[in-house]
Amino acid sequence: MSRPRVARLAVVGLGLLGGSVVRAARARQAAAQIVGVSRNAVTLGEARAAGLLDASATDLAEGIRDAELVVLAAPVGALPGLVREAWPHLTPGAVLTDVGSVKWEVVGTAERCPARAGVAFVGGHPMAGSEQSGFGASRADLFAGCLMLLTPTERTPEAAVGRVAAFWEALGSHVRTLGVAAHDRAVAAISHLPHLVAYALVAAAEGEALALAGRGFVDTTRVAASPEALWSDIFRVNRSVLLDALVEHRARLARWEALIRAGDWSGLEGELGRAREIREKLG
Amino acid sequence: MSRPRVARLAVVGLGLLGGSVVRAARARQAAAQIVGVSRNAVTLGEARAAGLLDASATDLAEGIRDAELVVLAAPVGALPGLVREAWPHLTPGAVLTDVGSVKWEVVGTAERCPARAGVAFVGGHPMAGSEQSGFGASRADLFAGCLMLLTPTERTPEAAVGRVAAFWEALGSHVRTLGVAAHDRAVAAISHLPHLVAYALVAAAEGEALALAGRGFVDTTRVAASPEALWSDIFRVNRSVLLDALVEHRARLARWEALIRAGDWSGLEGELGRAREIREKLG
Repeated sequence: MSRPRVARLAVVGLGLLGGSVVRAARARQAAAQIVGVSRNAVTLGEARAAGLLDASATDLAEGIRDAELVVLAAPVGALPGLVREAWPHLTPGAVLTDVGSVKWEVVGTAERCPARAGVAFVGGHPMAGSEQSGFGASRADLFAGCLMLLTPTERTPEAAVGRVAAFWEALGSHVRTLGVAAHDRAVAAISHLPHLVAYALVAAAEGEALALAGRGFVDTTRVAASPEALWSDIFRVNRSVLLDALVEHRARLARWEALIRAGDWSGLEGELGRAREIREKLG
Repeated sequence: MSRPRVARLAVVGLGLLGGSVVRAARARQAAAQIVGVSRNAVTLGEARAAGLLDASATDLAEGIRDAELVVLAAPVGALPGLVREAWPHLTPGAVLTDVGSVKWEVVGTAERCPARAGVAFVGGHPMAGSEQSGFGASRADLFAGCLMLLTPTERTPEAAVGRVAAFWEALGSHVRTLGVAAHDRAVAAISHLPHLVAYALVAAAEGEALALAGRGFVDTTRVAASPEALWSDIFRVNRSVLLDALVEHRARLARWEALIRAGDWSGLEGELGRAREIREKLG
């Protein structure tokens, strides 16, 4: 049995994520028609030239007209505005979704939009990405094997969740649903704080030290090559949860610093060992 | 012209690094004879069975007898004791070196040994490694293309530095010399602090969050799978420099936290951008 196919897909924003959505949808025939929507005419032209689009638009209302599934793939700070702007122009029966790294704001914005029969929003966040950005970095296999998080609420129609899940599964990803707050806390721990800390480690390694860096440092700080505007925006939107995680991180480092000052090496080794055991589960 | 070959090489300790030294020396014919020295008879047996050794010993004095080059590849905390124990048994003309991650203690210990004509110590630290450990993880290509740091002092004979450098170049690494204090400061920034911070990031990501981790978290925390006993030992030996780096790191995070609390996004973006520019140089 073939997977359910989207009749008309509109992707708003053709950067790393949006570009990869259109590439993957084309490659896997997950949509009969693909519309690219971007204010950047150059990127739209590149995507058309690559044979990825059946139509394109620089105007949002025009681009999402008649689309059965609309994927907002803009920076996280732009999502609430796009949801409000798109909402009245969605075709009855359409599902709106997004790929933002923080969910409370965009999900809350969608739930405050006036109810429209047969129109639904499902928050989404693919756990894929790269320190690279832009359409030029997009890849058809970006989502293959990756975890796709959906954050429906009690107000989200189950059928809409199922359609968005089926679309992402068609792109090769594994779908998992969780609550908005649980999502935002989890990504603070496994993504937002690690990014902030990686930037800080690099900032401390200027000059000669950097020339000596080996594989460990290169891996540990890879995410610090990510565009600062995107990440400053993510930190802004997830600010309160990130601050909790950051305060806890600084407190843990302060405790470990005290162990080092006290020469309590078995105490420190116990702390490091617990972390090592957790990390080994990740492979 | 063929590279200068070591007549008889003794490697003390056959874990990840020592095992990789004998494998690389064998594969690249960097030594005519290779002696493995370990208190672990099982590991010695495995290395012999793999055809890597011409002789083996569990006794240090016996193992290094007649060796032209002796490489100490034990955990960093064991190095001063091994230097003192090996020193009187070195053959005239021999060079003693090591692969420890912290240099002040082992170099200082060697310089306090009674002068012996024709016997020299050269501190060494290959910027290679892995979160894995033990002879089973050793590889003939571990040092290929890696940076090999040597930390001679004004008392180190140039000829000895040249011989150690030639040996590591024969194993495929790029040799660079720098001062002991500069080395210990640099590795605190690019290796020791990043390890400590990676352990702390993992410790904060227990439970459900961990199940959502993507490539970014896996890369950022890879080094937290390293054996805690080895790293607690490295932190102990480089304690004072590591504490300076840790205090500075916590202070930087506190400043960034203040920017986030104040909503100074352009200020934060400026800090992140400076780090991103540094990181991009690493490729």
